[in-house]
Amino acid sequence: MNRWQDFRERVFYDQHTGLTLDLSGIDTFPLLEDKMKTVFANMDALEMGAIANRDENRMVGHYWLRDPDLAPTFAIAEEIRQAKAEILSFARQVHEEGIFQNLLLIGIGGSSLGPAFVADALSKGKEDRMRLFLLDNTDPDGMDRIFSALEGQWEETLVLVISKSGGTVETRNGMEETKARYHNVTLSFPEHAVAITMKDSALDRLREKEHWLKSFPLWDWVGGRTSVLSPVGLLPLALLGADIDGLLAGAAASDRVTRQKAVGQNPAALLALAWHHLTGGKGGKEMVILPYKDRLSLFSRYLQQLVMESLGKEEDRKGNKVDQGIAVFGNKGATDQHSYVQQLLAGPANFFIVFLEVLAGRAGDSPIVGEESTSGDYLEAFLLGTGRALAAQRKDAITITIPQIDGYHIGVLLALFERTVGYYADLTDINAYHQPAVEMGKKSAGLMIELKNQLVDFLEARRGCSYTAPELAGLLQKENALSPLLEREEAPYYIFRILRYLAANQDGIDSEIGEKFIDTRFYCH
Amino acid sequence: MNRWQDFRERVFYDQHTGLTLDLSGIDTFPLLEDKMKTVFANMDALEMGAIANRDENRMVGHYWLRDPDLAPTFAIAEEIRQAKAEILSFARQVHEEGIFQNLLLIGIGGSSLGPAFVADALSKGKEDRMRLFLLDNTDPDGMDRIFSALEGQWEETLVLVISKSGGTVETRNGMEETKARYHNVTLSFPEHAVAITMKDSALDRLREKEHWLKSFPLWDWVGGRTSVLSPVGLLPLALLGADIDGLLAGAAASDRVTRQKAVGQNPAALLALAWHHLTGGKGGKEMVILPYKDRLSLFSRYLQQLVMESLGKEEDRKGNKVDQGIAVFGNKGATDQHSYVQQLLAGPANFFIVFLEVLAGRAGDSPIVGEESTSGDYLEAFLLGTGRALAAQRKDAITITIPQIDGYHIGVLLALFERTVGYYADLTDINAYHQPAVEMGKKSAGLMIELKNQLVDFLEARRGCSYTAPELAGLLQKENALSPLLEREEAPYYIFRILRYLAANQDGIDSEIGEKFIDTRFYCH
Repeated sequence: MNRWQDFRERVFYDQHTGLTLDLSGIDTFPLLEDKMKTVFANMDALEMGAIANRDENRMVGHYWLRDPDLAPTFAIAEEIRQAKAEILSFARQVHEEGIFQNLLLIGIGGSSLGPAFVADALSKGKEDRMRLFLLDNTDPDGMDRIFSALEGQWEETLVLVISKSGGTVETRNGMEETKARYHNVTLSFPEHAVAITMKDSALDRLREKEHWLKSFPLWDWVGGRTSVLSPVGLLPLALLGADIDGLLAGAAASDRVTRQKAVGQNPAALLALAWHHLTGGKGGKEMVILPYKDRLSLFSRYLQQLVMESLGKEEDRKGNKVDQGIAVFGNKGATDQHSYVQQLLAGPANFFIVFLEVLAGRAGDSPIVGEESTSGDYLEAFLLGTGRALAAQRKDAITITIPQIDGYHIGVLLALFERTVGYYADLTDINAYHQPAVEMGKKSAGLMIELKNQLVDFLEARRGCSYTAPELAGLLQKENALSPLLEREEAPYYIFRILRYLAANQDGIDSEIGEKFIDTRFYCH
Repeated sequence: MNRWQDFRERVFYDQHTGLTLDLSGIDTFPLLEDKMKTVFANMDALEMGAIANRDENRMVGHYWLRDPDLAPTFAIAEEIRQAKAEILSFARQVHEEGIFQNLLLIGIGGSSLGPAFVADALSKGKEDRMRLFLLDNTDPDGMDRIFSALEGQWEETLVLVISKSGGTVETRNGMEETKARYHNVTLSFPEHAVAITMKDSALDRLREKEHWLKSFPLWDWVGGRTSVLSPVGLLPLALLGADIDGLLAGAAASDRVTRQKAVGQNPAALLALAWHHLTGGKGGKEMVILPYKDRLSLFSRYLQQLVMESLGKEEDRKGNKVDQGIAVFGNKGATDQHSYVQQLLAGPANFFIVFLEVLAGRAGDSPIVGEESTSGDYLEAFLLGTGRALAAQRKDAITITIPQIDGYHIGVLLALFERTVGYYADLTDINAYHQPAVEMGKKSAGLMIELKNQLVDFLEARRGCSYTAPELAGLLQKENALSPLLEREEAPYYIFRILRYLAANQDGIDSEIGEKFIDTRFYCH
């Protein structure tokens, strides 16, 4: 192994974006130039407005968000420009009025992971224009933690409800609970509420009916996991005072570089080909994202969604069973070296690592903390040292370097990974833009709510009578009350679990453990 | 598949701990009763003070922390009891005096992951006795974020420096930087500083020399990743006002249940056998930890260290190459359903999932948010719905249920996973209690610091002269200045990367990109 030789041949550097991609920590791989011609052509078509997400009959337009001139129609370009202008104007107004000090963002998945990551990466601490609170789940105790932090400050809180479809249950629940809090302190919720959703969605109709303070559009051609540079990310980030122009400019610059047709000059193509090579084109490996910078510690969580929801697919576009998917995890270095790096060095080689290096250490001077070195010198030494140890153990590692953390370079990173995911998906012939399996869990959850309501009704109608789970299954079955979607053999299991939960939470429902735990009897008193 | 039948046969419930382990979402597996006899015997020997960590010639004593009567000597039992008494007394004193409002914990890996997880799980929000700040890295910008939050409050800040060995570089750096802040505002650092470290370590000698406010002991028989119920966790948690008696009692109860020799009655044995079965005894799979409770969202990060550092091993105890290791990731449900659950459902079956269910929703009443249901009802429905979808896709899932989040039940969970890891390691004949590979990265990092200092000296002695990386490698080589541990072929690579970092950070060091990026010339002006 001649690391310097490998570096000479396999380092990519681009002056405009400041991006460096170091592929010297993995084997050489073929550039598949012929195949990449098709991949590039498909990406060109996508950018020009093809129905790239065929299963959902949708265009895929997140690249237009940072360069509206590329949008396939003038109307779309205008909508993008107008939304951004309105975001900037609304944020300016909020800052000038100075009433709203807190921003409560209610959203889940694509409606929170992007804003949460970028807000943390670009935070100026106490100098942020507003304080961000995130309600991203339907956990009542989790909501109470946030509500308690906002106690006495509802007047100064701007509530931002984000749901593309306008029907996301967790987000609806967070909104309803927040409404109840405003109601409790006799403040008007609509006067504090802003929506981001698609036109005519349930949320859009609601905010119109209730005369919310403001709303911003979303479009069906933006997927949730690539929506951070749409109003979903731009509005909260502008409100916090982050540099959204820089973000957009960085993403646009990254797009220009990653559109290049010379594979060796295109960092997204190189990265996608590296993933393809490292997983034998089949996925099934882990990608460990290890940024040596505290500000980037949420990046892996953002990439979990972008990569796993895009690439985790059972079938390719032709319907072949492929079971694709690259699992993503990681927090930050050097911290993670004291956690799981032992396994990366010594354990199974079922992963590759992506180091993220940020050259600039801190604003201002650093004290010498030891061996003529600063804290930042040690951070760099740990990054290099861990890379060297991994290389000695023949473990694969890619290094991406940016000069500093600012809006521009975060934009560069976001766009780099978006396009890499797109290229990898095309290389493996999968649709990166749908998420069909997510519906399965939602549908089953709907069944569970239905079953819970039936059980409560049944027990309330028979107060004082107690039943085991299989007894209840039998009785409901007899009444033809059970959904035909619920198999006979599984009904007692879900009845047991639902009632055990209800007994712990709902007044009136109780349980008594029999001789055996599974003979637990449930009743309403 | 008959889910109810499977549940009847494969659910474990223990009344004392309130723990339920539902193994109906995976295939049946053999209980390996003979093999488990040896595993139990080894664990008994470990608990009685055997040198279970032979490579480091150490006892493994974290189980004594919650039941000092079990300690192998009276002296050890007394040390444990006395440390706890002193912790409670010190915390009471701090609370009564009311001067310290902030707790700045400086520690990394085992010295921060445990306290961070438990503090978040048990936080009472504004009613916590102190506000916790965590300095767990050597990122100067990351430190500045924390220092900026503490600006003007150094007087009210208690600094807790935790390092078992007393020589952890990241922790030393954090301490030195913090000292500089106290110096800047002309406050005495020692009067605000408390140490947790082993007797006679570098940190112990320092705190003695400087007359720090207080210090608490650590013992060589406590590993970092199992130290959360030693002073490492107990002190900060007591200072925050968390229920450390409950934690210890829960862990002790969990220990009693998981010591049982009847495999079918022992949840840690069952869980370890499940991991063993699901990975064919070879590891190499991912364990996705999915708690449906915001308060548990740091649990996966805690378990990443506990599981991956313990089980990620190249060799078994006989020296056979085994490449063991189970990768751990996950955040929280229902949130993660909007992120990577698409891949779990549709992607490769290279994982198993561990659902964590908490029966109690919230303190106080819940509004109905839709379909006669509360937010908590939906959380439960999403948990069950996703489990059902995974089962339909033939993906493996285990469910662990606890009745509520409190000190006791967090103690139960901590102890359950500690012993499961111990059993799995014994089943696969690996040493769970060392981390030999971590040294590789540290040694390489030391080389990098040395090389950096040589480069700075070299360039400073030749101000104005510029060199490429290979030129510098050649010149240093000629002077016999390069460490013999650094291979000739890799020297230019690390020289390039170190100097690129220095050019971005150190006054006087600069670079100029030549015709090609890799021909960059470095100089001192």
